[in-house]
Amino acid sequence: MRLRNVKNKEEIMNSSIHLVRNPFDHRGKWSNLFANDNPIYLEIGMGKGDFLIESAKENRDINYIGIEKYDSVIARAIEKVPDDLTNLRLIRGDALDLGEMFSKEIDRIYLNFSDPWPKKRHMNRRLTSHIFLKIYDKVFKNRPEIHQKTDNIDLFAYSIVSLSTYGYTLEEVSLDLHNSDIQNNVMTEYEKRFVKLGHKINYLVAKK
Amino acid sequence: MRLRNVKNKEEIMNSSIHLVRNPFDHRGKWSNLFANDNPIYLEIGMGKGDFLIESAKENRDINYIGIEKYDSVIARAIEKVPDDLTNLRLIRGDALDLGEMFSKEIDRIYLNFSDPWPKKRHMNRRLTSHIFLKIYDKVFKNRPEIHQKTDNIDLFAYSIVSLSTYGYTLEEVSLDLHNSDIQNNVMTEYEKRFVKLGHKINYLVAKK
Repeated sequence: MRLRNVKNKEEIMNSSIHLVRNPFDHRGKWSNLFANDNPIYLEIGMGKGDFLIESAKENRDINYIGIEKYDSVIARAIEKVPDDLTNLRLIRGDALDLGEMFSKEIDRIYLNFSDPWPKKRHMNRRLTSHIFLKIYDKVFKNRPEIHQKTDNIDLFAYSIVSLSTYGYTLEEVSLDLHNSDIQNNVMTEYEKRFVKLGHKINYLVAKK
Repeated sequence: MRLRNVKNKEEIMNSSIHLVRNPFDHRGKWSNLFANDNPIYLEIGMGKGDFLIESAKENRDINYIGIEKYDSVIARAIEKVPDDLTNLRLIRGDALDLGEMFSKEIDRIYLNFSDPWPKKRHMNRRLTSHIFLKIYDKVFKNRPEIHQKTDNIDLFAYSIVSLSTYGYTLEEVSLDLHNSDIQNNVMTEYEKRFVKLGHKINYLVAKK
């Protein structure tokens, strides 16, 4: 996710009621923070937050957490979150640290339009590499469940093989999500743009 | 595979040295027919045979068998097979009967540009449906291994889910075979045409 610098990002982050400033302190206790035992869905690299905010609005009985690496990006997301959206939290952090932020308390992971890292030598940085799948194992509460969307066919092909060889079963796959039977799709910012351009969106649900 | 009627198809079939007229009689004894213990690769729906013939020419230490439902189609393939290609045999028959033709003696199955059977009520006719995967279980010698190519994205997505939920691991996947790292691809008649038109070819290797 590329974004021009947001000048007042510090101010935006400091005043947010949705940004969790000390995610490591909540490890094993995220339900306390939400004050309920509802399932927790995590979006890694949630960008400007459209998908997460829309999902949280539509499903009040699910808790949503978004993690994003870049200050300028998360600042844009923070500005969009309505104050009364109590089932959503945001983290400014690195997915490599997820195992230190969560302990067997995540029910589902969303990977939407992740960086494809096209070069082979950067393969391990892809969010569906075995490096990351091992980290996700630490945070899943019960049966691991990953939902991925991407317009990048190489990342998608890679993800299928990586998930399958890691022991995941591909339970849903579409190579053209917007011309499929799949219902209730919540679009990301990228997705809206891609669909307008007539690009095909790839989609999978994998469970272990 | 649609093909106009071939008038002299009976004559062509009757005079072929590659057509196996009584495939059920060879069950468990196909190695005798080839007079060696080389691996046997089976292409289901081999159409006019380009892929099979080219593969057999390039890999003399592999035995190839093609099965095709339609007389007119297999007649066209027969005409193309050089007489001295001893590592290739053809069967006019139905894939539903494979379990009665072979007994744990196939090393690999190729599914190239199979009929996508797009309607949901015809789903079980797709060659990667669990109906067929159960039949293939009966014919595989060791570890099941299926290689699929198709330009149909719905069939491809369906196949990934069907294979994965049946216990296969997706070991190789490409959504654009002709712009991938995958080497030594032998093209089918369809494929040559599709690639000329700029269509993307989907490719997978699944093992159980």
